[in-house]
Amino acid sequence: MRIVIAIDLGGTQLRVAAFSLRSPTPLRVLRVPTPPRGEQIFAQLKTLIDALKSEGELSAICAACPGPTDPARGLILAAPNIPGLENYPLGDMLQEEYRVPVSVQNDANMAAVGEWRYGAGRGHKNLLYLTISTGIGGGVICNHQLITGAHGLAGEFGHITVLPDGPLCSCGQRGHLEAVASGTAIARYISEQIAAGRPSILASEASINARLVAEAARQGDALAQEAFQYAARFLAQGIADFLHLFNPSILILGGGVSQSGDLLFEPMRRALETQVMSPAYLENLAIVPAELGDDAGLLGAFAHAALSLETAG
Amino acid sequence: MRIVIAIDLGGTQLRVAAFSLRSPTPLRVLRVPTPPRGEQIFAQLKTLIDALKSEGELSAICAACPGPTDPARGLILAAPNIPGLENYPLGDMLQEEYRVPVSVQNDANMAAVGEWRYGAGRGHKNLLYLTISTGIGGGVICNHQLITGAHGLAGEFGHITVLPDGPLCSCGQRGHLEAVASGTAIARYISEQIAAGRPSILASEASINARLVAEAARQGDALAQEAFQYAARFLAQGIADFLHLFNPSILILGGGVSQSGDLLFEPMRRALETQVMSPAYLENLAIVPAELGDDAGLLGAFAHAALSLETAG
Repeated sequence: MRIVIAIDLGGTQLRVAAFSLRSPTPLRVLRVPTPPRGEQIFAQLKTLIDALKSEGELSAICAACPGPTDPARGLILAAPNIPGLENYPLGDMLQEEYRVPVSVQNDANMAAVGEWRYGAGRGHKNLLYLTISTGIGGGVICNHQLITGAHGLAGEFGHITVLPDGPLCSCGQRGHLEAVASGTAIARYISEQIAAGRPSILASEASINARLVAEAARQGDALAQEAFQYAARFLAQGIADFLHLFNPSILILGGGVSQSGDLLFEPMRRALETQVMSPAYLENLAIVPAELGDDAGLLGAFAHAALSLETAG
Repeated sequence: MRIVIAIDLGGTQLRVAAFSLRSPTPLRVLRVPTPPRGEQIFAQLKTLIDALKSEGELSAICAACPGPTDPARGLILAAPNIPGLENYPLGDMLQEEYRVPVSVQNDANMAAVGEWRYGAGRGHKNLLYLTISTGIGGGVICNHQLITGAHGLAGEFGHITVLPDGPLCSCGQRGHLEAVASGTAIARYISEQIAAGRPSILASEASINARLVAEAARQGDALAQEAFQYAARFLAQGIADFLHLFNPSILILGGGVSQSGDLLFEPMRRALETQVMSPAYLENLAIVPAELGDDAGLLGAFAHAALSLETAG
């Protein structure tokens, strides 16, 4: 039996799974904490892949990696939270070791592919997937194709400017969507307001995160609710931009912050109705939560490898 | 000989051309002023197509139309400057008359295809075309495919929000790229500044347009130069967004305002260098003027029809 190895290199967990070519149910999944330094990653990966090789005849490997990648050259360009992976030639290293086709892809892009093939986006030709957690990322399928751009740098959905000269973004620019609507941004907004003297039940917390803000909002804390409304306003503005550019038939929302549910999405939907240039953009658009959770990237990496083998014949 | 009819329905001129399937040099081109009302368009089109039919065996028709279209249903959704074309079933009407495959497409999308196949973008797999004139439009090719979206509404590059609560846009929203960086926006900026009492050699002009502002800027008028710098700043901001989303290998700039050349593009390029999240987005990016001028839409419509026939076998 021919098998595919799918890798999901997360900031905290490294997962490697073996799949038969015909089924998205993995034959076996191995999970370990992500080594703290990039140089240790390859040895760890090799141990896990070697342990899975016996499941069948290895045909392809696909790795879903955090941060920007260059799929054409098999490079991880930089991995936030994992030092030592700058311009890291993971593709060549795996190819040299295992002598099979290797693909190195962005994890949000792979999550989009996973939701498209096996999750909330099944059957759609034009799909937009956004993940809202510590940061904001995403992936887009247009006419049955994942958009990666000339050098794999496309799909940076968190990094469009929604507020010129706005808050500092993780990438060093200002006013990006990620800087005003991510979990980090929601927590920062309320921390700044508390520091400015505004009342909140979170004022006594030493460390605030988006989950705490969501709980406070549900308990009726006005400032926490305001923090979500602030994020929702810019999320709607950014999504309106994306609809005008990509006109998908489905928008899938994943990531930890998406689990705040209506706290974020109810004001976002209302704002979106006033932000699109024509109601036609919303008339045939499904807005749904992601279905695959943490498995989206791994399943997308499997689907991507399996599709590549099909295309190659 | 099999022929294709390409139509370019402009706000002022209606052009219809016959092409052999094998060459982008038209066999014959007919031009007439665009009828003032939509109801007269079809009769006029029929007269022109009938006059060209004798050039060969008619195989396909493709129409490049202003404003949003729905290619899947062959509809013109609305044509700015041509009343009476709301939800106009041009595709069905032409198909019923001529019994060949008919495609109804947005003109900026067709201009992108024209520049890709026959103009400045030849050989590129990932291309972004922007046209800056009265409004701002564009088209994008990703991995050899024109992106049209689920219902043909993709590629509205003028309609992303670059300045929340900014100037009113032609579409009714505020702060869109078109509202701050089009020819109309440049003229409005200087008119408003003059009305507020600021000096300019254009202060005595009854009616200001972008061409006059460009002339004044070249003569050293400080306010006119400022108007271009204001537009260039937002143009760079919008283009940085597009690069982060699409990562093209070439950016082609067309439209009347693009002919202001370095007045707009020199400050835009400088701003772009500070706006991208990584220099990688600019390292392998060519930024070039369009080559086909007014013919881009007509040539793109021909290319689109010819490609469709190839795909259909």
